[in-house]
Amino acid sequence: MEVGPRDGLQNEKEVVSTATKLELIERLAKAGLQDIEAASFVSPKWVPQMADHAEIMAGLPSAERYPNVNYSVLTPNLKGFEAAAAAGAREVAVFAAASEGFSQKNINCSIAESLERFVPIFEAAKQQGIRVRGYVSCVVACPYDGPVAPEKVAQVAARLLELGSYEISLGDTIGAGTPASVLRMLEAVERVAPVRKLAGHYHDTYGMAVANVYASYQFGLRSFDSSIAGLGGCPYAKGATGNVATEDLVYLFNGLGVQTGVDLDALVDCADWISGMLGRAPNSRVSRAMLAKRN
Amino acid sequence: MEVGPRDGLQNEKEVVSTATKLELIERLAKAGLQDIEAASFVSPKWVPQMADHAEIMAGLPSAERYPNVNYSVLTPNLKGFEAAAAAGAREVAVFAAASEGFSQKNINCSIAESLERFVPIFEAAKQQGIRVRGYVSCVVACPYDGPVAPEKVAQVAARLLELGSYEISLGDTIGAGTPASVLRMLEAVERVAPVRKLAGHYHDTYGMAVANVYASYQFGLRSFDSSIAGLGGCPYAKGATGNVATEDLVYLFNGLGVQTGVDLDALVDCADWISGMLGRAPNSRVSRAMLAKRN
Repeated sequence: MEVGPRDGLQNEKEVVSTATKLELIERLAKAGLQDIEAASFVSPKWVPQMADHAEIMAGLPSAERYPNVNYSVLTPNLKGFEAAAAAGAREVAVFAAASEGFSQKNINCSIAESLERFVPIFEAAKQQGIRVRGYVSCVVACPYDGPVAPEKVAQVAARLLELGSYEISLGDTIGAGTPASVLRMLEAVERVAPVRKLAGHYHDTYGMAVANVYASYQFGLRSFDSSIAGLGGCPYAKGATGNVATEDLVYLFNGLGVQTGVDLDALVDCADWISGMLGRAPNSRVSRAMLAKRN
Repeated sequence: MEVGPRDGLQNEKEVVSTATKLELIERLAKAGLQDIEAASFVSPKWVPQMADHAEIMAGLPSAERYPNVNYSVLTPNLKGFEAAAAAGAREVAVFAAASEGFSQKNINCSIAESLERFVPIFEAAKQQGIRVRGYVSCVVACPYDGPVAPEKVAQVAARLLELGSYEISLGDTIGAGTPASVLRMLEAVERVAPVRKLAGHYHDTYGMAVANVYASYQFGLRSFDSSIAGLGGCPYAKGATGNVATEDLVYLFNGLGVQTGVDLDALVDCADWISGMLGRAPNSRVSRAMLAKRN
């Protein structure tokens, strides 16, 4: 799941034009990515970077051009869901935390309240045949509460599955995890959810994301989130890295002999281009090394 | 094995003063690192950054202050070995390649010739009770010849052990490896060498080093080389990263519950200081994240 256009750009200071976002999505689809998180139907008051969500939906590449690409959008509440559905979304994502501190600071309610709010979204989505992906954040540690109990992650994941999520994306939001803490968390979640319904969403803040993906792949996960050029940064440690770069994961999987269907050279071109738009180099060691070799 | 003062600084454009190098070594010892590669007894014609090797040896912290710290120096030939021994070295390192192309371009002779040249070094070292560490470079791929056969690495490692190396450091010189290629290489080497005599020396050029260390640790390796602040860069892709940062490995092992005896906060202080001397930020995600959180 390529999250650069949403999770990535949402956390960049620079606001990128709608045309640039649409070109980014087009380039990602062309490079072979089949799941792209394209926008967020959140109030522009809170996230001005995502104010153009309806224009993004209207401007997505036609299904004729990329018949196998799914576009997902984040919908924090029913109002956002209805707007997304009206704009033609076929997949939405909802977002809960595994830590009370993060839930309160980030969405201003308890974990239980946030899950309750999602019930009408899941009901409406079911009626309209729209898929729902569930995000759980802070699955290893929370910037406010510290370490998070694996059982708490499992509880939230179980409820999101029960409500009807087709997949649960497990987010190490502050990138604090290592293979040990990630595997402890996965073992707890696997007791309540089949591993084929789990995705790893690991941030590279402490340089552990590739190792965490490798350990999770060995554990049985087959779905991972990443962001082209590592777009997004880290809101909890300004100047540090956030989302793991898509290029780094494709390089890893190429090395492991795992087919991703993604063209690494095209990804690096895309990373170079979008990073240039943001006035910096890609937050990806693979892109930096491959670009350095080209020069 | 902390290689920042040698492998790291040798590959930095900026030449660092002897006093700064000695302070670096002192800080690393104080942070808890017990194996430090301090200098190279190579001709200053080839490596001007290491011209002060005798001064470095003379200025090392006294054994009273850090009784458990070993200092190693690189000795490319018998002349270098004799100078190192005269300067009081108790451990030296020799350096062979697993690829003919690299051997020819880097040390101007075939692999077999380079191993032959080491014979008198091993003999002299044995007589004088000096330990020898054997490096093998290009254990996964070569910047000139491409992929390197695991059996070739095993051959070179076996010969270096036979000559009397106490440990073989397996270097992924261009950082191209992933856990799959690293494990294939380790499996071949393990057939000729006990795993307790092997060390992983992985570069982070493509962001894979932490995953490769994790996979190697699972395989049974307990010794790893790294460079404070990722000092060194990559001579084969200018602008890219080289040695994996010591901070990143200590963070990984702390997470895995493996005792390293190294103080991560002191390491980050040291990385910040030496990177400042070089006019840039540390090439370590851990240092960047921890420094960003402090500000």
